Amino acid sequence: VWDPVAELPAGRERLAAVCARWIELLEHPAYPGGCFLTTAATEWDGRAGPVRDAVQRAQARWLRVLRAEAEVGVRAGELPLGTDPDQLVFELNGLAMSLNQSIQLASDTRAGAYARRAVARMLGKPLVS
Amino acid sequence: VWDPVAELPAGRERLAAVCARWIELLEHPAYPGGCFLTTAATEWDGRAGPVRDAVQRAQARWLRVLRAEAEVGVRAGELPLGTDPDQLVFELNGLAMSLNQSIQLASDTRAGAYARRAVARMLGKPLVS
Repeated sequence: VWDPVAELPAGRERLAAVCARWIELLEHPAYPGGCFLTTAATEWDGRAGPVRDAVQRAQARWLRVLRAEAEVGVRAGELPLGTDPDQLVFELNGLAMSLNQSIQLASDTRAGAYARRAVARMLGKPLVS
Repeated sequence: VWDPVAELPAGRERLAAVCARWIELLEHPAYPGGCFLTTAATEWDGRAGPVRDAVQRAQARWLRVLRAEAEVGVRAGELPLGTDPDQLVFELNGLAMSLNQSIQLASDTRAGAYARRAVARMLGKPLVS
């Protein structure tokens, strides 16, 4: 998800690009079963041990990447007034999980559009892929 | 989740109440591992067979319940202008999944507040529990 956007300037532009890419990957997964991290996180979150710890670290790292972009965007005044980086990342993660479930479980092809609309509203910027 | 709110009038009031109750249950799960339906859905969404079908039906039914309330709320003009019931339900489901993951995987006690704030914004109404 990250590689194609790494060269973009930090902040809203890169956050929007990574969200657009994230949504595309969830809509058209490279392998069956959808997001591997979501599945691993949900399967292991209630157990103790090294697998859970690794999943927890991977998920926390991904959310920190998103949070860093959100924070740059907030400081630069690029994001809608009153945006809280932690709140934004919490909501973006939820959109990705809802999209993953809609595609994987319900085969709902409208879900990508819902995710894009919600992200665009949160970032105050239409998503282009 | 539904029983304590069944007597309330349909629409935004009942949707807000069920969301408040949903958030409380995810914050303070009755059994270890968090939301059973989320876990089952994520674990089985990539497989075929009767378990997947049952999980799919249960999840679809729950989303239809939420959607019915959203539709009443939209028709009555109770929800923010431009609210689309399907979009709203997609986003509410995401908030619940993000909350479940934040509690179960990251033990993030701030997540309930993020979920309440987001729901309140979507419904145009503060959440009381």
